[in-house]
Amino acid sequence: MKIWNQHKNDQSSSIDKFLSGEDIVLDQELFLYDIDASIAHAHELHSINILNKTETQKIVASLKKLAKLFKENKFKLTDKYEDCHSAIESFLTKELGSIGKKIHTGRSRNDQVMVAMRLYAIAKLNEIDSINIKIAKAFFKNAEKYASDPMPGYTHLQRAMPSTWGLWFSSFAESFLDNLDLLRNTKSWININPLGSAAGYGVNLPIKRDISTKELGFKRKQLNSLYVQNSRGKFELELIGALKQPMLDIRKFSWDMSLFLTQEFNLLSIASKYSTGSSIMPNKSNPDVIEIMRANYAVIAGHYSELENLISLPSGYQRDLQLTKRSLIHSIHCVLSTLELIPGLVSSIKINSERSNEFIDAGMLMTDRANELVQSGLPFREAYIKIKSDKSSKSIVKNFSRKNASVGSAYNLQLSHLKNRLKKL
Amino acid sequence: MKIWNQHKNDQSSSIDKFLSGEDIVLDQELFLYDIDASIAHAHELHSINILNKTETQKIVASLKKLAKLFKENKFKLTDKYEDCHSAIESFLTKELGSIGKKIHTGRSRNDQVMVAMRLYAIAKLNEIDSINIKIAKAFFKNAEKYASDPMPGYTHLQRAMPSTWGLWFSSFAESFLDNLDLLRNTKSWININPLGSAAGYGVNLPIKRDISTKELGFKRKQLNSLYVQNSRGKFELELIGALKQPMLDIRKFSWDMSLFLTQEFNLLSIASKYSTGSSIMPNKSNPDVIEIMRANYAVIAGHYSELENLISLPSGYQRDLQLTKRSLIHSIHCVLSTLELIPGLVSSIKINSERSNEFIDAGMLMTDRANELVQSGLPFREAYIKIKSDKSSKSIVKNFSRKNASVGSAYNLQLSHLKNRLKKL
Amino acid sequence: MKIWNQHKNDQSSSIDKFLSGEDIVLDQELFLYDIDASIAHAHELHSINILNKTETQKIVASLKKLAKLFKENKFKLTDKYEDCHSAIESFLTKELGSIGKKIHTGRSRNDQVMVAMRLYAIAKLNEIDSINIKIAKAFFKNAEKYASDPMPGYTHLQRAMPSTWGLWFSSFAESFLDNLDLLRNTKSWININPLGSAAGYGVNLPIKRDISTKELGFKRKQLNSLYVQNSRGKFELELIGALKQPMLDIRKFSWDMSLFLTQEFNLLSIASKYSTGSSIMPNKSNPDVIEIMRANYAVIAGHYSELENLISLPSGYQRDLQLTKRSLIHSIHCVLSTLELIPGLVSSIKINSERSNEFIDAGMLMTDRANELVQSGLPFREAYIKIKSDKSSKSIVKNFSRKNASVGSAYNLQLSHLKNRLKKL
Amino acid sequence: MKIWNQHKNDQSSSIDKFLSGEDIVLDQELFLYDIDASIAHAHELHSINILNKTETQKIVASLKKLAKLFKENKFKLTDKYEDCHSAIESFLTKELGSIGKKIHTGRSRNDQVMVAMRLYAIAKLNEIDSINIKIAKAFFKNAEKYASDPMPGYTHLQRAMPSTWGLWFSSFAESFLDNLDLLRNTKSWININPLGSAAGYGVNLPIKRDISTKELGFKRKQLNSLYVQNSRGKFELELIGALKQPMLDIRKFSWDMSLFLTQEFNLLSIASKYSTGSSIMPNKSNPDVIEIMRANYAVIAGHYSELENLISLPSGYQRDLQLTKRSLIHSIHCVLSTLELIPGLVSSIKINSERSNEFIDAGMLMTDRANELVQSGLPFREAYIKIKSDKSSKSIVKNFSRKNASVGSAYNLQLSHLKNRLKKL
Repeated sequence: MKIWNQHKNDQSSSIDKFLSGEDIVLDQELFLYDIDASIAHAHELHSINILNKTETQKIVASLKKLAKLFKENKFKLTDKYEDCHSAIESFLTKELGSIGKKIHTGRSRNDQVMVAMRLYAIAKLNEIDSINIKIAKAFFKNAEKYASDPMPGYTHLQRAMPSTWGLWFSSFAESFLDNLDLLRNTKSWININPLGSAAGYGVNLPIKRDISTKELGFKRKQLNSLYVQNSRGKFELELIGALKQPMLDIRKFSWDMSLFLTQEFNLLSIASKYSTGSSIMPNKSNPDVIEIMRANYAVIAGHYSELENLISLPSGYQRDLQLTKRSLIHSIHCVLSTLELIPGLVSSIKINSERSNEFIDAGMLMTDRANELVQSGLPFREAYIKIKSDKSSKSIVKNFSRKNASVGSAYNLQLSHLKNRLKKL
Repeated sequence: MKIWNQHKNDQSSSIDKFLSGEDIVLDQELFLYDIDASIAHAHELHSINILNKTETQKIVASLKKLAKLFKENKFKLTDKYEDCHSAIESFLTKELGSIGKKIHTGRSRNDQVMVAMRLYAIAKLNEIDSINIKIAKAFFKNAEKYASDPMPGYTHLQRAMPSTWGLWFSSFAESFLDNLDLLRNTKSWININPLGSAAGYGVNLPIKRDISTKELGFKRKQLNSLYVQNSRGKFELELIGALKQPMLDIRKFSWDMSLFLTQEFNLLSIASKYSTGSSIMPNKSNPDVIEIMRANYAVIAGHYSELENLISLPSGYQRDLQLTKRSLIHSIHCVLSTLELIPGLVSSIKINSERSNEFIDAGMLMTDRANELVQSGLPFREAYIKIKSDKSSKSIVKNFSRKNASVGSAYNLQLSHLKNRLKKL
Repeated sequence: MKIWNQHKNDQSSSIDKFLSGEDIVLDQELFLYDIDASIAHAHELHSINILNKTETQKIVASLKKLAKLFKENKFKLTDKYEDCHSAIESFLTKELGSIGKKIHTGRSRNDQVMVAMRLYAIAKLNEIDSINIKIAKAFFKNAEKYASDPMPGYTHLQRAMPSTWGLWFSSFAESFLDNLDLLRNTKSWININPLGSAAGYGVNLPIKRDISTKELGFKRKQLNSLYVQNSRGKFELELIGALKQPMLDIRKFSWDMSLFLTQEFNLLSIASKYSTGSSIMPNKSNPDVIEIMRANYAVIAGHYSELENLISLPSGYQRDLQLTKRSLIHSIHCVLSTLELIPGLVSSIKINSERSNEFIDAGMLMTDRANELVQSGLPFREAYIKIKSDKSSKSIVKNFSRKNASVGSAYNLQLSHLKNRLKKL
Repeated sequence: MKIWNQHKNDQSSSIDKFLSGEDIVLDQELFLYDIDASIAHAHELHSINILNKTETQKIVASLKKLAKLFKENKFKLTDKYEDCHSAIESFLTKELGSIGKKIHTGRSRNDQVMVAMRLYAIAKLNEIDSINIKIAKAFFKNAEKYASDPMPGYTHLQRAMPSTWGLWFSSFAESFLDNLDLLRNTKSWININPLGSAAGYGVNLPIKRDISTKELGFKRKQLNSLYVQNSRGKFELELIGALKQPMLDIRKFSWDMSLFLTQEFNLLSIASKYSTGSSIMPNKSNPDVIEIMRANYAVIAGHYSELENLISLPSGYQRDLQLTKRSLIHSIHCVLSTLELIPGLVSSIKINSERSNEFIDAGMLMTDRANELVQSGLPFREAYIKIKSDKSSKSIVKNFSRKNASVGSAYNLQLSHLKNRLKKL
């Protein structure tokens, strides 16, 4: 039922259902953030005497009661409500009568949804931040453990140069440190208060937007009321874009894992709980978890693409923008459920030292041999040609090492730099 | 011709062409950045005695000469070269003989391309930064000029509340200020030195990567040599994602313009140079420039999507990644060519005050009237219903004003805040 | 619980949940199709004596019983099952003991999922086909009704030439007729039987695939067992691509409606049930239904993009492909829920004849006037210039008609052609 | 210079350049098709006496002369023309004076571009059709050659069941046969004549559209003039979507090749001309051609996505639609350049029989062993469990064969079915 529409009887339920879409499911996520924002809004209304002290106290108490009921699963957001916002306002009105009918003064559904969405996004970015740190640490721990363990280095999936497991693990550790920087920049960029912009044109009430800005922990207020509306979709797109970055790394990591786990590579193993069997082949043990991790990038890409197709619109709110909610909330769910399994999976990796050593053959040292000639004065291009024509045997290399390895390379990892970055988080 | 492949005679030209793709066209953009990076690389080689002082000086002089020739269009990068990197190395070898053959010591085509791409990206982000400032200023100037000029405020493209042209212009001004913050964050995020990582596994030479880091103006070096490779595509995706933000705003602006320029809305006009005629209809004057601006978002979206589909790959370089160049370079071209027309276009806008006033009817004041009732104590929901049922005439509103307009809304723009942000840029 | 994995106790539930994703929800859709395919499979097993006559009869009876229970909502597919396939097999085993354990002979989960998915897709394409016909008819009916009613014809959203409402309505009618052709081609293309390919390599049992092909209504069998696996995702992508076509038309139709419903255009109106109010503005009546229709294209675009990003994979089944289900099922739901509202909406449109006439001004006849000069021998380019320079007044045109209107144009609709195509459906 | 705009002197060249974009490059492709359509249009004008017999003959002769000059590279389409259409009309006017100025009677740039685009698309689809047949044959030839050569069958990249190289090669052969069906359906779907619809509203001249329909080889005319405009982008999207299908197969094929060519798999080899070296590593031989083939799918995906983002527009022509040209033309180029290398590459494949045999271990026969138990009456689920618990050695399998292999599986390829389909093409 729509609060502001109760006289409209010809609204058929199939149309209502079409309009509300998944709102009731999605709004489970937003419920508590709407309550927080409503409390802040009540304080703003009090400051301009729309609510007196008692009314404000009652509304705040009632909202806190509702939050408690919701957390304890005693208040259920079901499809008898249009969405979480209707449910909350209707609870207030039921509890407080006329006082409850005052809460929507000076705000619109538009800024109400947006503030809840932003609070939700920021809270979830904080969760994702923590998991990113755990992931960086898990990779770093293995990088330290296997710092000098030889590993074939590939380009074009062809054996290229000797490498180390330390290099491989720390490549992901460094990438996740950069992901963290990016996610924090993104969080900071969207961390501005939309509340008080109403339906895009403000209201004729001297709402003190600084109160909610401070109370809800925003960096500053988003000033222009039309810009607030126009940033719907814009901010979500940037945010989902940033969420892709850790997922891109996980996709690459999963590709590596998927290859290294083949019987042909067989360079490592994982805990058995990350594999499953086949319905027809008794012999199979398949790394399904890793494949779903790889696949989940596509889910985020899909939501991003959906959102992007959605927002080719003129200024001002249009109902299309309701769908921005699903893109963001589903994306965050998918990212969280994928990332939270990574630390355990990484920790369970056992490298196969014997195979790793076996795969480093004499050909992979050709660049090093060319560089030795270079150091005795031969120009690199001539050294390259000389070495290339020297068809030495493909014998396996024993006890390979490098004395002059360049900074950040397989035999000069400089893990202390990463350690310092990790410490500062 | 490939420098390192001269003995391979069975390589048919159709395959070579398939492999090199657009490289010769794209590499026009990278030529000078590769020279800068090669000079820095020569200094690094000198510091570890691969090049002596004289050799270094000769190489640097020769590279600077080539840069001058290229800028003056006297050296042309044509398809007799595989790409800019081959052309530069081949020039050096032609000029300096054996000495030229030393420049590729301790680096690979991989880190060479990456460092040139990053220098290019940073230089272009600086250009885009400047244009964004000009755009923000152009919108701001109009916001000041038309600060209190009435304009109908729309939601759902339906008339909603009274607004001002100041609100509309400053909504874009504020958005471009936020775009600037984002683009600077992004620039800072990618501003790390990949040179010295070779093909992803470093080299057995104690390359002093800090020299090139400092000389080329990078914030710091990107440490892990494998991570350097793995960030190819990853960084470009984030960058193109950030470039979408000003283009999203331009798409919205173009939609607004496209509507406001219809005979039906007729709320503003633009300089005639932004319109064209029809091949069949003598009566037409069409805002083609605005439509291509709107359309160009799609070009960026396409390149982003291309890049995203490309980079589902395991660790390490794979030739697929060559295509990252075209996505980024074409995106930057498209963004620059679109944005640079905006300041002129915005300055040429003339608003139609008469129509703007005409469109503000009594219905659009209903929210204000509800809020007046609220201030006399009636709960908002009851005021809303009361006003809704009052079918007052659709008469045009004269001399509308608001005394208590909320912060950032149509009648309380607080342009000084934006002015301060603009000043700090 | 996994049927084939019951000894694996270390499989934590969080991993299981990660792996199964939305399967239980999605599989509600596939349940009955899996039963149909399982019955056909039982017949195949009987034909090679894996099941004797009694066993076959018992299995078929039990499967039919389950179908009835499911339809009557007496058997519920809940998350105590891994998916619909496990649920069905487990029901059989519970009902029939050892006999039930025979049903999975000679098939794998892979071909089992695929055959259910295809039967589902074909059934849903048939539903969409029917709705498309209804939509084509609804547009056609209005085209006939308003065949000669004048309407301004726009290009670049600028008034261009006189047109008719008949042209506008029949443009969608013709497009939906073409959509039907496309959807039928697509259905035919995917209408091939994957059952009997097992996990991509067949089985060592002489399964008679023609039995299920015929029984399930497939056009022919998809031959190569590896190709069957490799077509997973490939076929779904093509299918979702085809579903975009009616949705593209609806997006365009919604854009038109959204514009024509503005107070500025005001060219038509719709039944009030397709509009909603605002939470803050008592004056508003917003065409939310139309906006969500327009927006829903983005949902399909998102699922398409998700699927496309997913399937960059080597040959053979990989768990990533499990996610193909959600792309397809969600897309079909979205298409159905959008399209089924269209006939009612189209029928409810009332055109505003007065405004439509008012908007046709003298300028819009310039092309006609140039063509008149052409008929007296003046070359078109000269006629064009002559007319363009003649700044006649923008007076409204009364009683416009065309005697020589070209075939298929505003004043020569030839609706009988469309009528004939409609009849043949 | 714009033919219809010569009085407009304030049009700055930067704006012109912005508007025309890549047109001059793209229109090289459309030049001859515009001439063909212009000839047909001249015949239509003759049939309604806009052109007399002599005029028609002169125009046709002049257009044929221009076509000849263009093919011989004696007439060059340079950026002194706006696009190919202006160039052709200007040539006619230069050659024939007033007569040339008549050619644009009764058509608009809109239908002129569309008819040229469709003729181009159909011609290119025919080329792609031929290459698809060659590809299907190349795969089929190898399927026959290696029909029974053992190959490990993978699922999840894990060894699954014994397979054959015949199955692998013929999986692609069958897929390309299906691609052919799809491409032909798509060609048929778009093979309808847009000429005569002018700018979307027809003209007041009784153009006989059946003349050009027949002369240009279209299946029928596209009737509704507004639908013609609205199908711009719609048809291109469907077409690019269909072009993805062979490219999807090539991406999968390239993935397989990339894996099978690793030293770890080493299951096959290709002619050396498809590999290249490294700029730093003398040891490398990289399958770059295969990687670019895989990557090129992304190019098509990008153009599709660009087009999709572009066409969220109301009815009628808008300049945004100009960009549909680049999406389609670039896509077709990319598809052709990729596909034409495939037959040669496939023919050059040499399988490594020894390794292929080696990889088939006893575990891969477990399903067969379970099925043997099934045939002696044990229910499959019990057989599965019994076999799973039997940890037999991982010994290599010698002389594996299957007597009862299911239809279409590795040991029962039924290549004659594919041969029949190939014959009918």
